[in-house]
Amino acid sequence: MLYVIGLGLSDERDITVKGLEAVKSSERVYLESYTSILMVDKQRLEDFYGKEVTIAYRETVESCSDEILKDADKINVSFLVVGDPYGATTHTDLVIRARELGVPVKTIHNASIMNAIGATGLQLYAFGQTISMVFFTESWRPDSFYDRVKENSTIGLHTLCLLDIKVREQSMENMIRNRLIYEPPRYMTVNEAVEQLLEIEDKRQEKAYTEDTLAVGVSRVGSDDQVIKAGTLRQLLTVDFGKPLHSLVIVGHRLHLLEAEVLRENAVDLEGLNLVLRRDYGIDK
Amino acid sequence: MLYVIGLGLSDERDITVKGLEAVKSSERVYLESYTSILMVDKQRLEDFYGKEVTIAYRETVESCSDEILKDADKINVSFLVVGDPYGATTHTDLVIRARELGVPVKTIHNASIMNAIGATGLQLYAFGQTISMVFFTESWRPDSFYDRVKENSTIGLHTLCLLDIKVREQSMENMIRNRLIYEPPRYMTVNEAVEQLLEIEDKRQEKAYTEDTLAVGVSRVGSDDQVIKAGTLRQLLTVDFGKPLHSLVIVGHRLHLLEAEVLRENAVDLEGLNLVLRRDYGIDK
Repeated sequence: MLYVIGLGLSDERDITVKGLEAVKSSERVYLESYTSILMVDKQRLEDFYGKEVTIAYRETVESCSDEILKDADKINVSFLVVGDPYGATTHTDLVIRARELGVPVKTIHNASIMNAIGATGLQLYAFGQTISMVFFTESWRPDSFYDRVKENSTIGLHTLCLLDIKVREQSMENMIRNRLIYEPPRYMTVNEAVEQLLEIEDKRQEKAYTEDTLAVGVSRVGSDDQVIKAGTLRQLLTVDFGKPLHSLVIVGHRLHLLEAEVLRENAVDLEGLNLVLRRDYGIDK
Repeated sequence: MLYVIGLGLSDERDITVKGLEAVKSSERVYLESYTSILMVDKQRLEDFYGKEVTIAYRETVESCSDEILKDADKINVSFLVVGDPYGATTHTDLVIRARELGVPVKTIHNASIMNAIGATGLQLYAFGQTISMVFFTESWRPDSFYDRVKENSTIGLHTLCLLDIKVREQSMENMIRNRLIYEPPRYMTVNEAVEQLLEIEDKRQEKAYTEDTLAVGVSRVGSDDQVIKAGTLRQLLTVDFGKPLHSLVIVGHRLHLLEAEVLRENAVDLEGLNLVLRRDYGIDK
């Protein structure tokens, strides 16, 4: 059996009891390590499971899926994914390959940012499509996300923005010279995301959002030191959210009174927030 | 400490290790029982926890929150919620009351239908707002959901439809006579949901969807006997999804090739599905 197991959001104890039993029954355990990160290291997982854990990089999963799946028709193999297995689709190939080989697959669900973002107090049913923000480079500043935010905003919905993670990236020079030397990992901050959002609004000028649009920045959701801060995009440019991972929600204008109440609890600046709520969202105290 | 703990989707072993530790450390344990159901009964939870579990009905939580929170500044109390705590907002009052009383609150996340619906192969970032379908009665057939589906469908997004649950409902007669006799619980099936959807399309005629629109019906997501079936709304009218809980996704026209591939694996009728994919979604094999 191939178990594809969600680890949840924060540390080794966010795995479900069912997931932990599956890991303990497995002869080999892999940890997918390119779409998200846990806040603990591999050693801590290994100590907790009492088992060796093999990091599965993107190229491992793509080129060595048969190795991962070896004998999985007779023994149990666990493939661990941070969050929920269906949050990312990057391991879909592995599951398809398992089916081709006649290996039974079982998925064990867990929390992911897609539902835990409810911790902001914004109601999940009022979110539109989710966007991904990638790090801009000198020559590559893709702005297709802007149309998605605008579509959501036109019908008043919130937009969850997932922020870029760069692990095991090679510099152009190292890539050309075929040297497997990797740059230090980079995780996009809320500040960087807001900067890119405002740059594109400045370029497009279609008012999908403005500097005064309300947004909620979050970091390390589900952990004991999670941060949730609500304010205008301009305000969130400078709030320090600390260590990764960060995410951002652009608040839609169809904001409910109860949602506004929770925004107030997490306000960067309560007076300013109340002003914007009254002026732009028609919500009085 | 008040722990608000997500139980996940299926059985007693879907709780996280962190959640289970919190339950075991608690002097009192409550199970919220009006927004969703687990597929196991209270006795099985009690055996698993080695603790008594008190069912918290809506009226209990609303009127007896101080009783639930009694001494929670000194001892641990667990409040269990099926799925993720932020899936429903009905216990928000309890958390607000806890804050007023100076009781610290910790949330322990888990999977909910809002992210586990990814098991359909439809990509979570391509979902629009979520709708709730309530049981129609002779005199009450609310159709505001129709506008939400239409907004999603206009921009090509999928719509998750959460289906009504009726537990501890009184008949009109018993209510008038103030007799606490409850009707048997009712859980809306995919078939009933589709029937109501088509009735409203028939009335509104704005083509938010038609009988030929693709949809995916699911039941008991996350359990060993989950069912996932893709077909047109007309086809899903008669597919038997078995025991509760059921949910439904109306597929948006911005369907990705990879998503179509998974729909095919779960097709009610593969030939018919391929025809609709080609004709209405521009997707060839």
